Amino acid sequence: MKKYRWQSGEFTAEGEKVVDELLDSPYSVKALFVTADRYALYEHKVLAKGIPVALVTPDEMKRLSSFSTPSPVLAVAEIPAQDVSGEHPVTETPGLYLMLDDIRDPGNLGTIIRIADWFGIRAVLCSEGCVDCFNPKVVQATMGSLFRIPVLYQDNVGLLGALHGRITVYGTLLRGDNIFETSLNNHAIIIIGNESQGISEKLQHFIHAGLFIPSYSETPGAESLNASVACAIVCAEFRRREQR
Amino acid sequence: MKKYRWQSGEFTAEGEKVVDELLDSPYSVKALFVTADRYALYEHKVLAKGIPVALVTPDEMKRLSSFSTPSPVLAVAEIPAQDVSGEHPVTETPGLYLMLDDIRDPGNLGTIIRIADWFGIRAVLCSEGCVDCFNPKVVQATMGSLFRIPVLYQDNVGLLGALHGRITVYGTLLRGDNIFETSLNNHAIIIIGNESQGISEKLQHFIHAGLFIPSYSETPGAESLNASVACAIVCAEFRRREQR
Repeated sequence: MKKYRWQSGEFTAEGEKVVDELLDSPYSVKALFVTADRYALYEHKVLAKGIPVALVTPDEMKRLSSFSTPSPVLAVAEIPAQDVSGEHPVTETPGLYLMLDDIRDPGNLGTIIRIADWFGIRAVLCSEGCVDCFNPKVVQATMGSLFRIPVLYQDNVGLLGALHGRITVYGTLLRGDNIFETSLNNHAIIIIGNESQGISEKLQHFIHAGLFIPSYSETPGAESLNASVACAIVCAEFRRREQR
Repeated sequence: MKKYRWQSGEFTAEGEKVVDELLDSPYSVKALFVTADRYALYEHKVLAKGIPVALVTPDEMKRLSSFSTPSPVLAVAEIPAQDVSGEHPVTETPGLYLMLDDIRDPGNLGTIIRIADWFGIRAVLCSEGCVDCFNPKVVQATMGSLFRIPVLYQDNVGLLGALHGRITVYGTLLRGDNIFETSLNNHAIIIIGNESQGISEKLQHFIHAGLFIPSYSETPGAESLNASVACAIVCAEFRRREQR
């Protein structure tokens, strides 16, 4: 649970690819649990970093894991401290930022973090109502991208208020402009709305241009795209424009 | 389980939005299970169609449901027969088709069907190794799109062999060409590979042009995009070109 995760300051990461990425990252890994048949894959890295290892049986792994089909490896690592000194990163480095408004589904958040990594997003700015990025399902869905880009939680209304006029704010809106026909600025925040409610009114006030991905369906009915899918198409379009 | 689902010829759909779409579709609905407080929402449609209704308690719904957090409504419907008479749809109607090579994750398949609906894809051509599209998790993730576009299972190698030269075949490949710089033909099949293995060799032979979504990450590490995310970006790019 989020509360205990943040109190303890530790989270778990599962899955061979994710643990591999974690061991290559600057994150501080406190312990590794692995089945005996897979230990050799991690031996070099854990010895080099002095990480305590426990060899466990598949049955023991089942009790440790958050998943019904556990992977053969699980790591416990430290949640990095959010740096609260100095300015907010958005004001320091020009570039593209994603702002998430109460994304609740762990798979969506994980997928969005992976998309952000692929498209060189500077940071993912989560509202306090977003699912915790250290939730085991989120960690797994990021496939290691969580360890490479900053995911920050804050009051997004306050942040946008403070940034007023210093960055362009876009948001995915059903009544927005066709993204393929809108000019896009690359020092920007792109807001992605909640899965069922979209972008909340208090954030909509800050949007300079609403973006809409047109449907090409010949029959009516398709009402929306999944939040992470919309995020992917929008990020790809921003980057495509740059390369011309 | 898939075996029993196909033997019985019936599947279950859960979730208010999905059941609503199902009731509006040509699918034959055999029964509706709903909690008493929500019955009024469905009364008009079930009476009009003569669908048997059972009012159930939340506890009973928990036993019926495939989800740990059940929705207040569940429908049982007939799996439509695949029309095996006449020609394969790909040879009949020009347009864009998606071909899926062993997509295993229910969330991915559901999301891809939803994307296909949004972008006016003619049909989703699943290999026999794909997860069953009537799996409850797939049904839910499609948000009703499953009831609007054809999802067909067949031997994709045989199909591509039979279509030889009559349609352009694209596939997402890590060593493909930058999609943003490749010419795209709109009478085409786009192959999406398995989540971890990509597109199998036996299908790669048929690809006329491999497509790659470039990464804009400034640090190395991001290795790939999720299958459904890649599918979304590719479909959006095909449609964007058309509108110019």
